[in-house]
Amino acid sequence: MQYSKSFYQIKSSQTIFNYVKDEIEQIGYYSLPFQDTTKIKEYAKKVSKKHIAIVGIGGSTLGTFAIYQFLKRTSEFDKKLHFFETTDPTDIKQRLKKLDLEDTLFLIISKSGTTIETISIFKYLSSLIKMSNENCTIISENDSKLTAFANKHKMTTFDIPKNVGGRFSVFSTVGLVPLAILGVDIDNLLKGAKEVHNSFFEQKEYYDIIMEKARFMVENKNRFNINVVFSYSASLEGFNKWYIQLWGESLGKININGTKQALTPIGLIGPVDQHSFLQLIAEGKRDKTVTFIKVADFQDETKIPANTLEGFDDLDYVDNLTFAKLIDEQANATIKSLKELGDIPHDVITINRVDEFNIAKLMYNYQLLTSVVGKFVQINTYNQPGVESGKKILKAKLKDKG
Amino acid sequence: MQYSKSFYQIKSSQTIFNYVKDEIEQIGYYSLPFQDTTKIKEYAKKVSKKHIAIVGIGGSTLGTFAIYQFLKRTSEFDKKLHFFETTDPTDIKQRLKKLDLEDTLFLIISKSGTTIETISIFKYLSSLIKMSNENCTIISENDSKLTAFANKHKMTTFDIPKNVGGRFSVFSTVGLVPLAILGVDIDNLLKGAKEVHNSFFEQKEYYDIIMEKARFMVENKNRFNINVVFSYSASLEGFNKWYIQLWGESLGKININGTKQALTPIGLIGPVDQHSFLQLIAEGKRDKTVTFIKVADFQDETKIPANTLEGFDDLDYVDNLTFAKLIDEQANATIKSLKELGDIPHDVITINRVDEFNIAKLMYNYQLLTSVVGKFVQINTYNQPGVESGKKILKAKLKDKG
Repeated sequence: MQYSKSFYQIKSSQTIFNYVKDEIEQIGYYSLPFQDTTKIKEYAKKVSKKHIAIVGIGGSTLGTFAIYQFLKRTSEFDKKLHFFETTDPTDIKQRLKKLDLEDTLFLIISKSGTTIETISIFKYLSSLIKMSNENCTIISENDSKLTAFANKHKMTTFDIPKNVGGRFSVFSTVGLVPLAILGVDIDNLLKGAKEVHNSFFEQKEYYDIIMEKARFMVENKNRFNINVVFSYSASLEGFNKWYIQLWGESLGKININGTKQALTPIGLIGPVDQHSFLQLIAEGKRDKTVTFIKVADFQDETKIPANTLEGFDDLDYVDNLTFAKLIDEQANATIKSLKELGDIPHDVITINRVDEFNIAKLMYNYQLLTSVVGKFVQINTYNQPGVESGKKILKAKLKDKG
Repeated sequence: MQYSKSFYQIKSSQTIFNYVKDEIEQIGYYSLPFQDTTKIKEYAKKVSKKHIAIVGIGGSTLGTFAIYQFLKRTSEFDKKLHFFETTDPTDIKQRLKKLDLEDTLFLIISKSGTTIETISIFKYLSSLIKMSNENCTIISENDSKLTAFANKHKMTTFDIPKNVGGRFSVFSTVGLVPLAILGVDIDNLLKGAKEVHNSFFEQKEYYDIIMEKARFMVENKNRFNINVVFSYSASLEGFNKWYIQLWGESLGKININGTKQALTPIGLIGPVDQHSFLQLIAEGKRDKTVTFIKVADFQDETKIPANTLEGFDDLDYVDNLTFAKLIDEQANATIKSLKELGDIPHDVITINRVDEFNIAKLMYNYQLLTSVVGKFVQINTYNQPGVESGKKILKAKLKDKG
């Protein structure tokens, strides 16, 4: 008897776990929490420029931006990060206005070393100020054209390992170098990632959390094809964008049977989006799962004072509450309202406090979840073949004109 | 014979058009383009404060933010808008740092006058600086508690018409007052809305565009339940957020037959999200329509210089291009790559240039589209009953504690 098939069954969690363990050597991000950070910290200590301009796009910036935005409101950083990501000329102009070019370190970040947006902006910036080792550092694969350029000009370089994809690179030099310059404790950051790593691979708490969540999402992917992350802090908007790239670009794939897979990520911010997207979740078609992210401790005691305004008796119950308490109760009320509806699958992640250790736990948890879901749906989680065609069309069109 | 049914058929475009015409008197936003702006302009001329702090959330801020962000990169505004939307204490603290309280006008915007986020923040700000007609203006319904408070303290007030919902209020006092203070030509803004209004109701160009698009989306709503707006300018990120509220909160409803309806909005920014979400569109499940938004003329001639960096021969084709041309060709290449895939429905909107007239056309077009889709799926486009339950739970919980 011969047999072939174009469908697949969802494998057991133990089988999936073995698949993931089998790729540890091959896929670089798994071992990033255990790297030696000495060189990065020594380099970072020597940076005296006040402005750090990061030139990069996608995986080269999203993770760093997520952590920077999460920490910056409650930290006293004496340096500022600026992100040059887009070819939109009005955006480049506006960001340049906020820089003192003479007091700026340029970090040019591109894994391939030939990212069109990054090199175009680098070309332009090089016409505004002379780039040298004094003000320019390169982060790229060690045999890229960008690294070759850096070597020729004796610029400092940091290597992006070949087996670490852009959207899995936040704990590599891509994220660690700018964050270390900023003053973030990158060892504590990696410690957070390490804790989740160990818990997962020792089949403890994070193994259960990740496996159960992945399995539910995969088993119900045709019914709930949209995965909403509803983050109750403005500081998590960068995290949401990072999640969207990680989830969308990793899981939007054709699987081994030629079937188009997709779990579609959406990022919301509470309570703002209670006044926007929430209505759609509550009364719209049941095609969404919702993950709430809360911050347990904002380390902020700002209170809503009593007696400053008269005539709002109906709202007196907010008097003397801290804003931290209010936003937490707003999250709880929204969660409860979905629970009462009964048919919207949701879960709640609570971040203990606003620091690098806790955001790293959250991010590493999501990276592992993405890898596990990828194994369940039998795709290559780490490539992105669907974006190549547009690049080729662009190149052909522009070359044609030249 | 008796007959009843729990399903509906999609009505003819002419019938839907008649339904829309029938609600013109009832639903306030249709007539906003024709209002008299004299009082607003006279008031705005007298504002001398440099910082304008807008306290509001959802429909009270999203439209203003969208227009402000679209225009600010290319305009020379001598005032700055600040948006206090969220109860996140770290966000409030950060925004306060950017203000000079003595040189700030506070615009408190709440349609109901009892929005919990807005009043809580207003209470807090009132403990930091004395609020009076000198530094505080109220925009609310004319019989709200907020307006009563303003009248008692002899503060200037502007009325939000009762029949204009928050997400349809950008062309009411909600948007016009802050934008006029900023220096935006609000008559030219309304002229853009008027042009689309007239074209639609005279069944000319915009009638065809809107009717065909709405019909396609409704006929295919179960297959393509996600509607992506892919905007090729960083300046359109605010527009995307406004669109998400308009679309999600208007159309995520239970219809007259008790069926949960939903078209789920997603906002992307190009070229940044070519490095994120595009893979999912290209190779993921075919559950998305995509609307590209391009800017024809960025009024910016910044070029990518040749010969500033050597060793990047493969990318020489960008030399001497303007960034404006590059981003336009990136959009074209992405559009072409989807077209070649053949099974992803998409359309392209080109904005002529970055000014208030053209953003108003885009926004009014989307408001009409939303109304038409709402009629097709037989829902109430203008309410939001699904968010009430969370509010009640919050109130009960907090009152309980007091």
